[in-house]
Amino acid sequence: MTELSPAETAARLAKIVGEKYVLAAPRDMEAFMTEPRDLWHGKAACVVRPGSTEEVAAICAFADENGLKVVPQGGNTGLVGGQIPDQSGKEILLSLGRLDKIREIDPESNTMIVEAGVTLQKVQEAAESVDRLFPLSLASEGSCTIGGNLASNAGGTAVLAYGNARDLVTGLEVVLADGSVLGNLSKLRKDNTGYDLKHVFMGSEGTLGIITAAVVKLYPRPRAVETALIGLASAEKCLELLVLAQGTAGPDLKTFEFMSRFGVEIVVRHSAGAREPLESPHAWYVLLELASQSETGLNDKLMALLEAAFEKEIIEDAAVAASLDQRKAFWALRENLSEMQKLEGGSIKHDVCVPVASVPAFLAEAVPVVEKTIPGARPVPFGHMGDGNIHFNVSQPIGADKAAYLARWEELNEAVHAVVKRMNGSISAEHGIGVLKRELLPTVKDPVAMNVMRRFKTALDPRNTLNPGKVL
Amino acid sequence: MTELSPAETAARLAKIVGEKYVLAAPRDMEAFMTEPRDLWHGKAACVVRPGSTEEVAAICAFADENGLKVVPQGGNTGLVGGQIPDQSGKEILLSLGRLDKIREIDPESNTMIVEAGVTLQKVQEAAESVDRLFPLSLASEGSCTIGGNLASNAGGTAVLAYGNARDLVTGLEVVLADGSVLGNLSKLRKDNTGYDLKHVFMGSEGTLGIITAAVVKLYPRPRAVETALIGLASAEKCLELLVLAQGTAGPDLKTFEFMSRFGVEIVVRHSAGAREPLESPHAWYVLLELASQSETGLNDKLMALLEAAFEKEIIEDAAVAASLDQRKAFWALRENLSEMQKLEGGSIKHDVCVPVASVPAFLAEAVPVVEKTIPGARPVPFGHMGDGNIHFNVSQPIGADKAAYLARWEELNEAVHAVVKRMNGSISAEHGIGVLKRELLPTVKDPVAMNVMRRFKTALDPRNTLNPGKVL
Repeated sequence: MTELSPAETAARLAKIVGEKYVLAAPRDMEAFMTEPRDLWHGKAACVVRPGSTEEVAAICAFADENGLKVVPQGGNTGLVGGQIPDQSGKEILLSLGRLDKIREIDPESNTMIVEAGVTLQKVQEAAESVDRLFPLSLASEGSCTIGGNLASNAGGTAVLAYGNARDLVTGLEVVLADGSVLGNLSKLRKDNTGYDLKHVFMGSEGTLGIITAAVVKLYPRPRAVETALIGLASAEKCLELLVLAQGTAGPDLKTFEFMSRFGVEIVVRHSAGAREPLESPHAWYVLLELASQSETGLNDKLMALLEAAFEKEIIEDAAVAASLDQRKAFWALRENLSEMQKLEGGSIKHDVCVPVASVPAFLAEAVPVVEKTIPGARPVPFGHMGDGNIHFNVSQPIGADKAAYLARWEELNEAVHAVVKRMNGSISAEHGIGVLKRELLPTVKDPVAMNVMRRFKTALDPRNTLNPGKVL
Repeated sequence: MTELSPAETAARLAKIVGEKYVLAAPRDMEAFMTEPRDLWHGKAACVVRPGSTEEVAAICAFADENGLKVVPQGGNTGLVGGQIPDQSGKEILLSLGRLDKIREIDPESNTMIVEAGVTLQKVQEAAESVDRLFPLSLASEGSCTIGGNLASNAGGTAVLAYGNARDLVTGLEVVLADGSVLGNLSKLRKDNTGYDLKHVFMGSEGTLGIITAAVVKLYPRPRAVETALIGLASAEKCLELLVLAQGTAGPDLKTFEFMSRFGVEIVVRHSAGAREPLESPHAWYVLLELASQSETGLNDKLMALLEAAFEKEIIEDAAVAASLDQRKAFWALRENLSEMQKLEGGSIKHDVCVPVASVPAFLAEAVPVVEKTIPGARPVPFGHMGDGNIHFNVSQPIGADKAAYLARWEELNEAVHAVVKRMNGSISAEHGIGVLKRELLPTVKDPVAMNVMRRFKTALDPRNTLNPGKVL
């Protein structure tokens, strides 16, 4: 087949979506070609902005027939480069931002049908408007889109109680590489008619199909929330507290985030208005939140949990938020950590998961590994302890050269990931593979699993039209 | 390739598992060839009983190389014939019963590694032994096995609070058609390293791979349980009660089962010791259960819920179980229904799901459809209302000929399934497709979905070695 020029490609796409929605000038494309951390900068034949599922299908069919490549993009907040085209200048960047309708809200069935380009925050707000909760919650929720959240199986702070993004879905509408539409916008809680196809697309980062709409699950909105910031002596004690909290609060336990003393120090040092949350410093801190449908009794439940934890000598100190402002201040300690860490110089990041019971052992091994690999480097472990998910960030040694430190990114990753592997952990708990970890994937993944993944890719996208060079 | 005779097949398999574990005499095979409802009766070359994953892998590799077919079987309790070989007498029945080890229990990570042949009841008991709950619960739990539960994505009475079988798993070990082993016994709550492969195998009824072991999730064991049997005037009121209960009890709401007056009548009439649960009869009954980690306060919560429901005129009457015996009696009304219905003559069954909000509308349409199709036939709708899952059983007209009635099974199914389709429902909520609904599947399923299913089958089992003629 004759290769189409970028200009011809743009002209053909304009016939599908209208001229207005094909961007080909470099200046117009710029915002789609780079991403927040500025690690990748792509080039594309053009950016196309379809306004309907049918248009997405027509674009894919056109690309598949003409040997062109399609890179789907949602809110462009991904952290592994999955949404950025390569350097060839030949790929089509397909932006899903115009698919921004909420098609239906059904509070009795506890479902909502949303298009891919709706921002996560708008999905949350639409749920709230009918007195329901859509629990997925991420730092980027104001700009990330639900399609991207599902394509990357996003995590966040509500996984402990509600599961990952994939667990919040009953149906998907997906455009396949050849332009056919898998239209399964099912609102059903149970459906055993054949293979479950939706889970293959969720987490495939746009390499197997393009999610254009989804049926998401809604939950009752909690009527009471209680938040505590707790000081503990060791990671082992954090684990003991988690087990105790799960046993006594069960599904009322919504949040169990943890961070090291150094993490709290960084936020208190650099964040305007941040204060030491407890009277004296502690080696570890846990942000614990309970929520309930009962308007009364939850504070008593939290106090009883904390008292039991004191008695068993699991915790050293605790403060319970007495106001919404105090609750926000506790959350700010956790949420501002990544941002404030930038002021401590370069940071080499790891997004790892281990079995929950292995979190203390992981830290006991990984911290000395860092010290041995780059003496003076300062680990800032924090994250979603209830899921075994540790954001094992490592700040540069004091006074070190930032660029020289960041040049050792892969070396440090390799050393830390070796510990993760020994513990049967994951080197990408939340953020996915994209291009960042594509070369790493075969080194950690079962060869049979790699083989099955390739078979799925060939079965669904034989011409490698969708997001080539990502994941696989 | 030369076709192996049944005798040669048995001899080759004996080299893999030992002679003792290959059954070829019809008498020895009998128990594996028929199933509880006696709807299917198969023939096989032999029954092979491997004792390890490696042996399962060797059997599959041998079969795949020699053009033989393998029918996997767990506890042989499936209701759609998926576990029964065809009439050729050439298929190999692979029984997983000897894979009966619990490999690991990790109460801190809330995970357990179990082999496919462990009965569901033993899985539940093992969880209980470490003060945890494995919530999957089915009528056949004493004999069904966890491998079969996962292969068929079993449902049951705990789906409302804990999800279907597939939602209770973090990792799977699967033997593929060619004998390679996908060994992903991951205990991780988060892992975004590539495509999610496990969900394709769960619910595929042994057609894509043979599940040999799984990592299942454990939950805190509730400390308090409160059970109510409630009388209501209409299905609409049942839905109103569900919405109210979810809003006030949230995740404490564990059970929301419903049945019609006729269902209660049948059980009271035929079941030894069963009594009318409420003073006067009601058109509908709901079995509602709350459970909590708090030892106190749950009764108050249930009473407040019932009082609110009375005030809003949602419910007509309610009884709260005051003892374990009374709780059992309430459950028996629901659990004995299928069994007691047999005493009313032939029953034509439908295992359907509709969006939760559509349950009343489904009943309003389906009941007249039954009356029109077979005048005098008596619908016994009951089931998992909280999931939108209705076991729409229909007893024969009084005095009708049972065989003549049952001969109209497909005709009635067709009429009822037409209503299901109009409501975007499922014709198999829990029980799967097997052979029973294989011909029906293409009539209800999106052709693109059928096409993708076939692509998956070809990608994973190109020679159609695993459970041929089931599902697809």
